[in-house]
Amino acid sequence: MGLVVQKYGGSSVADAEGIKRVAKRIVEAKKNGHQVVVVVSAMGDTTDELIDLAEQVSPMPAGREFDMLLTAGERISMALLAMAIKNLGHEAQSFTGSQAGVITDSVHNKARIIDVTPGRIRDSVDQGNIAIVAGFQGVSQDKKDITTLGRGGSDTTAVALAAALDAEVCEIYTDVDGVFTADPRVVKKAQKIDWISFEDMLELAASGSKVLLHRCVEYARRYNIPIHVRSSFSGLRGTWVSSEPIEQGDQKVEQAIISGVAHDTSEAKITVVGVPDKPGEAATIFRTISDAEINIDMIVQNVSAASTGLTDISFTLPKTEGRKAIDALEKNKAGIGFDSLRYDDQIGKISLVGAGMKTNPGVTASFFEALSDAGVNIELISTSEIRISVVTRADDVAEAVRAVHSAFGLDSDSDEAVVYGGTGR
Amino acid sequence: MGLVVQKYGGSSVADAEGIKRVAKRIVEAKKNGHQVVVVVSAMGDTTDELIDLAEQVSPMPAGREFDMLLTAGERISMALLAMAIKNLGHEAQSFTGSQAGVITDSVHNKARIIDVTPGRIRDSVDQGNIAIVAGFQGVSQDKKDITTLGRGGSDTTAVALAAALDAEVCEIYTDVDGVFTADPRVVKKAQKIDWISFEDMLELAASGSKVLLHRCVEYARRYNIPIHVRSSFSGLRGTWVSSEPIEQGDQKVEQAIISGVAHDTSEAKITVVGVPDKPGEAATIFRTISDAEINIDMIVQNVSAASTGLTDISFTLPKTEGRKAIDALEKNKAGIGFDSLRYDDQIGKISLVGAGMKTNPGVTASFFEALSDAGVNIELISTSEIRISVVTRADDVAEAVRAVHSAFGLDSDSDEAVVYGGTGR
Repeated sequence: MGLVVQKYGGSSVADAEGIKRVAKRIVEAKKNGHQVVVVVSAMGDTTDELIDLAEQVSPMPAGREFDMLLTAGERISMALLAMAIKNLGHEAQSFTGSQAGVITDSVHNKARIIDVTPGRIRDSVDQGNIAIVAGFQGVSQDKKDITTLGRGGSDTTAVALAAALDAEVCEIYTDVDGVFTADPRVVKKAQKIDWISFEDMLELAASGSKVLLHRCVEYARRYNIPIHVRSSFSGLRGTWVSSEPIEQGDQKVEQAIISGVAHDTSEAKITVVGVPDKPGEAATIFRTISDAEINIDMIVQNVSAASTGLTDISFTLPKTEGRKAIDALEKNKAGIGFDSLRYDDQIGKISLVGAGMKTNPGVTASFFEALSDAGVNIELISTSEIRISVVTRADDVAEAVRAVHSAFGLDSDSDEAVVYGGTGR
Repeated sequence: MGLVVQKYGGSSVADAEGIKRVAKRIVEAKKNGHQVVVVVSAMGDTTDELIDLAEQVSPMPAGREFDMLLTAGERISMALLAMAIKNLGHEAQSFTGSQAGVITDSVHNKARIIDVTPGRIRDSVDQGNIAIVAGFQGVSQDKKDITTLGRGGSDTTAVALAAALDAEVCEIYTDVDGVFTADPRVVKKAQKIDWISFEDMLELAASGSKVLLHRCVEYARRYNIPIHVRSSFSGLRGTWVSSEPIEQGDQKVEQAIISGVAHDTSEAKITVVGVPDKPGEAATIFRTISDAEINIDMIVQNVSAASTGLTDISFTLPKTEGRKAIDALEKNKAGIGFDSLRYDDQIGKISLVGAGMKTNPGVTASFFEALSDAGVNIELISTSEIRISVVTRADDVAEAVRAVHSAFGLDSDSDEAVVYGGTGR
């Protein structure tokens, strides 16, 4: 039996009862013969409460001090969790990100892990302890300041530690049963996925699936650390994310043609109207955007109207960045040379993800037929080798997701894929 | 202008308003040309809330994890305070005890500072920042674990940093105006003391005065760091504690004959009845007590009754240690050889403190006369060069303190000492 890293999110340790329940689960893994390293987030609403306090003393809390503040949250949950484990008769030690050797760059509030030197963690588990590590935090390499990793940072901490400790598996405990073929709040017949490849999971994460963040999956793929996403409440088998399918009992889990349908309504669309159709024009626009440190998603350039020599360029980006992008473009209007800007935040994106579409040319056609049958109008299209995404009206998203999910045989009561002769699920 | 260390207690930073008020006071000192290092405690009830959480997950929280938990409190207050200062347009950086170089032994929950290496603090203030340091915490020299200093630990942090940084003064901001000639809750006419020597302050602290703890004053005396105890609310001049009187305006503050009257009702008395009156007997009793790691205060041995060859030995100790002491003595009853134990927790101690009593032989007589006139019965007496203490019934303490305070001319409406021709206050 090797070492396992378990990560528990804030909803799993929201109160003393939650902490005691999680402690029992951790002790269970230890009793099964594993060395156990646990990564824990702040309790329930702690982080929000700290942010609220910060806003009361300062309208724009500063990076370094904000990180110092927020990291108090994990310090509380990890110490309590260690106490709860000791109360069950097992040895446990808690460690801050800094003590655990989580070394980051100096970008406060969204630092990136650049090295993990888990000497103290290794010593602790070798001495028979369960090691509890604060998620979401590290220490900057140059200044030795406390940093935080940004949203979903605890998952990344867990995967990075699992890689550095050469763990068997990184178990991500959450409040859902795993990764689903679609968001179960939108598609009632969505099914839990037993196994999914790193590549498909990366595409789902990039397309709006919230269970795992892109950065965390990317890290796991790079170091080939299997992730097991599961519920801290039910204890059932969840979703394995790995390079090769995992055996489940006697059954071999096979690669699905389609892994799932993701959707995202957090983006807006900006259309730059009346752009001269000449080389370098798009470059000027997107240099302006990137200089403002805004990440964009899809880009479409309309066919130029020959009569005017002008064209339109549309792109999507997080709604939260909309104001900043408009300002940056307006400021550089003369340099770019466009007529006007159109901003539309009533859009939604639907993505179909699956490695099978590489070898099943019918997938794209079936996807558009399903949308058409549901009466959904398509505004933009973007594809990768294993994903196809469309932008629609935000109001159409739920219906579109259900239509596509059903058309590809992903609904839980259908035995066979109906659109083309795939493996089905 | 040199460097000042300011310490703010939990009641001064109990909420966002308190933090903003304190931030203004800190910025004031910076504007006056000082380098400023601030030591801050956890906000208001934070520590109690964390202790409550700990008790919910474990009936006996463990030392190392308990320290990890409690230190989250200062992390929150110091980060918020730094943000509030930055919001006023001044640069501030917060540092944990570990980052500030507060090195301790490994005794969790009541660690002692063994070294202070404030390199990062020095660099920070030299760069023009206000440095905010977490009180009450450090890092253990051998294991690099987070430790806490126990009750009053933030004051000790402040004095230790002031010593290591060669500060002009260590300002202890609290919710009272300074050190008083008696507890103002008991003696309405108690007066604020303008200046008091380290020696007198040490005796007051040892005798029940709660404003400064003994350990903190001892540290300040060893490194000759003047302490200024004052209110974070009023901003008035408070009490200076130093080796030599401080000039105040045009007036030279003189050494008072009597500094104040302290009382303590937190102790209990144990009487060991029927002890053989032979050499080594007392040593056996107090070795038993010290092996149980119990600190005792006063000791009195009664005159032996010649007929029996037996005597009684009484001592006082914190009520919280009473059970442990009784158990230790009962366990070693055969080895010590006594008849029985009497436990009395209805006692109180009144102490008169002042360097003047060394050269004013009338002080002791006046003290006993005052108690006698007030009808207070004395059970035990203990003296040092500059202090005289008596144990009475707990019910008599308040009356006894008022009587003594008045008799020595310490009441605020009396112009002159009335008992003997002293300087008065």
